[in-house]
Amino acid sequence: MREVAFQRNFTNYAGGSVLVNFGNTRVLCTAMVEESVPPFREAAGLGWLSAEYSMLPSSTHTRKRRKTDGRATEIQRLIGRSLRSCMDFEKLGPRSIIVDCDVIQADGGTRTASITGGFVAIHDAVTGLMQQGLLEENPLTSFIAALSVGFVKGELVVDLDYEHDSQAEVDMNVVGNDKGEFIEVQGTAEGKPFDRSKLDAMLDGAADGIRHLVEKQKEALGL
Amino acid sequence: MREVAFQRNFTNYAGGSVLVNFGNTRVLCTAMVEESVPPFREAAGLGWLSAEYSMLPSSTHTRKRRKTDGRATEIQRLIGRSLRSCMDFEKLGPRSIIVDCDVIQADGGTRTASITGGFVAIHDAVTGLMQQGLLEENPLTSFIAALSVGFVKGELVVDLDYEHDSQAEVDMNVVGNDKGEFIEVQGTAEGKPFDRSKLDAMLDGAADGIRHLVEKQKEALGL
Amino acid sequence: MREVAFQRNFTNYAGGSVLVNFGNTRVLCTAMVEESVPPFREAAGLGWLSAEYSMLPSSTHTRKRRKTDGRATEIQRLIGRSLRSCMDFEKLGPRSIIVDCDVIQADGGTRTASITGGFVAIHDAVTGLMQQGLLEENPLTSFIAALSVGFVKGELVVDLDYEHDSQAEVDMNVVGNDKGEFIEVQGTAEGKPFDRSKLDAMLDGAADGIRHLVEKQKEALGL
Amino acid sequence: MREVAFQRNFTNYAGGSVLVNFGNTRVLCTAMVEESVPPFREAAGLGWLSAEYSMLPSSTHTRKRRKTDGRATEIQRLIGRSLRSCMDFEKLGPRSIIVDCDVIQADGGTRTASITGGFVAIHDAVTGLMQQGLLEENPLTSFIAALSVGFVKGELVVDLDYEHDSQAEVDMNVVGNDKGEFIEVQGTAEGKPFDRSKLDAMLDGAADGIRHLVEKQKEALGL
Amino acid sequence: MREVAFQRNFTNYAGGSVLVNFGNTRVLCTAMVEESVPPFREAAGLGWLSAEYSMLPSSTHTRKRRKTDGRATEIQRLIGRSLRSCMDFEKLGPRSIIVDCDVIQADGGTRTASITGGFVAIHDAVTGLMQQGLLEENPLTSFIAALSVGFVKGELVVDLDYEHDSQAEVDMNVVGNDKGEFIEVQGTAEGKPFDRSKLDAMLDGAADGIRHLVEKQKEALGL
Amino acid sequence: MREVAFQRNFTNYAGGSVLVNFGNTRVLCTAMVEESVPPFREAAGLGWLSAEYSMLPSSTHTRKRRKTDGRATEIQRLIGRSLRSCMDFEKLGPRSIIVDCDVIQADGGTRTASITGGFVAIHDAVTGLMQQGLLEENPLTSFIAALSVGFVKGELVVDLDYEHDSQAEVDMNVVGNDKGEFIEVQGTAEGKPFDRSKLDAMLDGAADGIRHLVEKQKEALGL
Repeated sequence: MREVAFQRNFTNYAGGSVLVNFGNTRVLCTAMVEESVPPFREAAGLGWLSAEYSMLPSSTHTRKRRKTDGRATEIQRLIGRSLRSCMDFEKLGPRSIIVDCDVIQADGGTRTASITGGFVAIHDAVTGLMQQGLLEENPLTSFIAALSVGFVKGELVVDLDYEHDSQAEVDMNVVGNDKGEFIEVQGTAEGKPFDRSKLDAMLDGAADGIRHLVEKQKEALGL
Repeated sequence: MREVAFQRNFTNYAGGSVLVNFGNTRVLCTAMVEESVPPFREAAGLGWLSAEYSMLPSSTHTRKRRKTDGRATEIQRLIGRSLRSCMDFEKLGPRSIIVDCDVIQADGGTRTASITGGFVAIHDAVTGLMQQGLLEENPLTSFIAALSVGFVKGELVVDLDYEHDSQAEVDMNVVGNDKGEFIEVQGTAEGKPFDRSKLDAMLDGAADGIRHLVEKQKEALGL
Repeated sequence: MREVAFQRNFTNYAGGSVLVNFGNTRVLCTAMVEESVPPFREAAGLGWLSAEYSMLPSSTHTRKRRKTDGRATEIQRLIGRSLRSCMDFEKLGPRSIIVDCDVIQADGGTRTASITGGFVAIHDAVTGLMQQGLLEENPLTSFIAALSVGFVKGELVVDLDYEHDSQAEVDMNVVGNDKGEFIEVQGTAEGKPFDRSKLDAMLDGAADGIRHLVEKQKEALGL
Repeated sequence: MREVAFQRNFTNYAGGSVLVNFGNTRVLCTAMVEESVPPFREAAGLGWLSAEYSMLPSSTHTRKRRKTDGRATEIQRLIGRSLRSCMDFEKLGPRSIIVDCDVIQADGGTRTASITGGFVAIHDAVTGLMQQGLLEENPLTSFIAALSVGFVKGELVVDLDYEHDSQAEVDMNVVGNDKGEFIEVQGTAEGKPFDRSKLDAMLDGAADGIRHLVEKQKEALGL
Repeated sequence: MREVAFQRNFTNYAGGSVLVNFGNTRVLCTAMVEESVPPFREAAGLGWLSAEYSMLPSSTHTRKRRKTDGRATEIQRLIGRSLRSCMDFEKLGPRSIIVDCDVIQADGGTRTASITGGFVAIHDAVTGLMQQGLLEENPLTSFIAALSVGFVKGELVVDLDYEHDSQAEVDMNVVGNDKGEFIEVQGTAEGKPFDRSKLDAMLDGAADGIRHLVEKQKEALGL
Repeated sequence: MREVAFQRNFTNYAGGSVLVNFGNTRVLCTAMVEESVPPFREAAGLGWLSAEYSMLPSSTHTRKRRKTDGRATEIQRLIGRSLRSCMDFEKLGPRSIIVDCDVIQADGGTRTASITGGFVAIHDAVTGLMQQGLLEENPLTSFIAALSVGFVKGELVVDLDYEHDSQAEVDMNVVGNDKGEFIEVQGTAEGKPFDRSKLDAMLDGAADGIRHLVEKQKEALGL
């Protein structure tokens, strides 16, 4: 697994602002709080959390044009769904947290880095709300982290960089919590289908990796 | 599992045109052949397959506005990736197959019905190409089918309808082939995280269901 | 004139759902009721009716891209205007009927099939509202049907299919009611201008055809 | 009928530039020549003519937002179809004429003024091409003019201004040529359907009016 | 400097409607009043003024496509900012003035003609409001005019036409008022940088020219 | 003047990648080289340079929505024009440099920081091209830097932060080179017009500041 690092308070204005590195992959994850919710949540009096994902044009070898393509849409939906699972929206109350994941440098695993770093940013934002007395109870119900796993030339690899990713026969993104449970499991055959034994091996590898990432998150948060 | 039915040749112009029913869910899946490929495939001389997914405004209880939202983008990417896995693009040669999945009526499982019906439409389109002498060898490498599975009130349910879907604690879409292998595995915690034993149960249920669907496909194709 | 058929209740959710065939032309016409009106009708307390027209990508020989082009815009405005003429909006009250015309297969005359089938869908939707006790009086003031007529190689043709249409010297779409009156008359010289005698012959042919279509509508509705 | 006037050479750059007045309705009609054709005309070696219609924000009592809405799309398609009927595209050769109709002031009948003024602009542009020796033969096959007619409070009115238009029971736009033939006939019931006798009266009125407009065009062109 | 002319009341509906000529450059500037303000002004009870700039397709030698490009966006922001400086928004009260600048013919200096003509249109619109008794006090605080200056082949030129503009080494747009003050100063090196002495010479030339333009505005307004 | 710092090689893939700080304003400026030019440069065989400017959603106190608004369009046009002035496009040859300025944190002066940091990124990218032997001669003709100046409460301030900016009576952005020449001069009255003496004072202040910035650039580049 690649070196993982979290640089908190990377910028000043967001409630949480974390530059996360998974090896050479670097994503700025920020969590900003807005004292309003989207129309479909208004009646229920519940909070909301949404995510946006974008790659800077200079984050890839060949310059990437600025536009939200299908891949980005798919990824930001995954990030939003995953991160919503750590939140008790009744306790959060009628406010929204928007998590922005802007990829500064892409070397594989940008979506899993976004989720893992995004959680730390949310943690900081929520802590801020509590310190300001805006929240009575902590709405966080668990830690969330994510990891890619795959088979490259027949070998199980955890946390694939770009080179691994482009050679992988099968590629899986797993989102889990600190209780060893799964939030999202997405496996895709790249090139050739995979059988149950490979799937099992990947899930085992992912579970171990997520445990390690949650430790790193706690360390970064001083917990 | 709900009643599955395939009505082939539902319309006249597409190479393959299949109205697939999974219970009350009804999707028109068509496969049309174009004698060209997207720019990024041109150099390689390989074929291509892409998919589009759309819901008719009248397919849902409340009228759905005509626009490609994030959910549709995510689904059509899944359909395209899944169906590409059954095709040897060298044998297909420099032509494209476009699969259109238009949901006539939505009662849960539209994406898995789209993949399962889409495969039958592709099979018809490819058979047409071979009968016209445009293909020397059959480019199809396997059968592809897809199914949703989930836990509803603690019980494993295979092929969830809308009511099941809205009550499911966890929901999984599995795409597989006729060899018992997986192409895509997407599990999402709706509400609360799931553990490994539930994941295993769902994968077992999906594998059985996909076997059943492939039999139905073969029956419909008279194979 | 081609065989005309109406398959009512083709889908389950819309108030009216009619698959109409004019020969090989097949259009799914649905009418859905919403308990609100557009802003410009709010003050008056009157109802509204609007239409949308779209062709499925697989409805034509060469795959049609999904987008609302100028032709579709022009057609859906015609459908909306025509169908609004059968409705007493005071009696309908502050609600909207949205008619969706989705072309499943196009072989000429899709706009006239849409209007003719759309009326049957509206009739079913209105009957439903009355059965639910939401309407006191029937807001329908007449039956509406539409037909294309034209001159092909010097001969008058009623209800042109695609081949006729592409050879027609002049082409006319006529919308009328069950009282022999006109709602909309649109004649276009394709290639060469037409004189008054040809115009008169086409109007006569259309009037006869519309009478026939209204009989078919009544038959389909069991009236 | 309102006063009709043509101010030729209103601007300097277009091949034809005509400010046409139908009473208080004022439209700037320009015809610009481009030495290329759209892709679908390339193979045939034939020319093309297209039109665009737009209203300046200040052309109406209440400021109109700048956007091409459904009405404008419908109108510019009508203008293009109508004006194409005066042109022999073989003689025009592989070049395009683009007619822009920008409404400076709108008081009813902007589409018919656009067609009538647009023809004069085309005539000037074609004369220019001939004077430059770029055309051997005159590609114009007829004069084209257009007029609205309708019934207001039971009376036939020719060339409706805005006030007439908003009170009309039925409203018809007729495009004709100098041979007394029709190019386009579009009648719309506004409020209540119309019978054949009203339709006949409107067509008679339109035919007379178009004759008058063609005389005015010839006068303006010094023919 | 080129001949400058203002044709007031060019159209009937806008509060102010001025066709301004700077030589062959002709811009229709209209000012329309709306009895509402954008959301960000609502709380303060202050009025607003905004501008839109557009070129007719036939305004340039080569036909210009209808779309708001980056250049138009930049220009309309400049026009809006400049014209807002003549207005006391407290006195104007909670209403908006929208200035539309539609270029009929472009021969250089369209943005400066728009500002200079736009002011006259605003003056007419404001006078109209006062005559209707809708304004108690005149909200205009100064006259505004604008001019381009530049160096062409080493010579200072005031009010550049298109030919000058395309040859200019440096090009400056200056917006000023009748008190000799500046509102906007925008100098751009075209090709090679400019030193302070050239900048000073351009500012002197612009100040003289603006004085002359304000005289012309007053003359046109009969003041 | 605020502290200015350049962190070169902030990311790995771009030819030049500079995180520039003007106090709390932080902009990531990257320069990427593409071996092609836009269509309008192709015939001439000359190179091109363009710029894009964007603010991260978390760069401002209140979250900024991701979209290119009018302000961003105006700014990126300024950045592009300014930076093109340092380049001999004949020497650059038929390739493009794209400068992306992504604002990480905004505290006033983001456009001037973008230009000043963008130049350093271009310098690095050009040095890279020369080291790879892709360029024979250095195409850079000068150093470029930019600065805001303004009057706040009657006092001249150089390099305005956000608080200064929001209080400034007049605000000027000046782009200059290392020869003391001007590239762009943009002064805007915020609130009230300014006279020539204030303009002169701002130009003097800017000239001094630009000299200082060029020294900082050289220092950062080790020159």
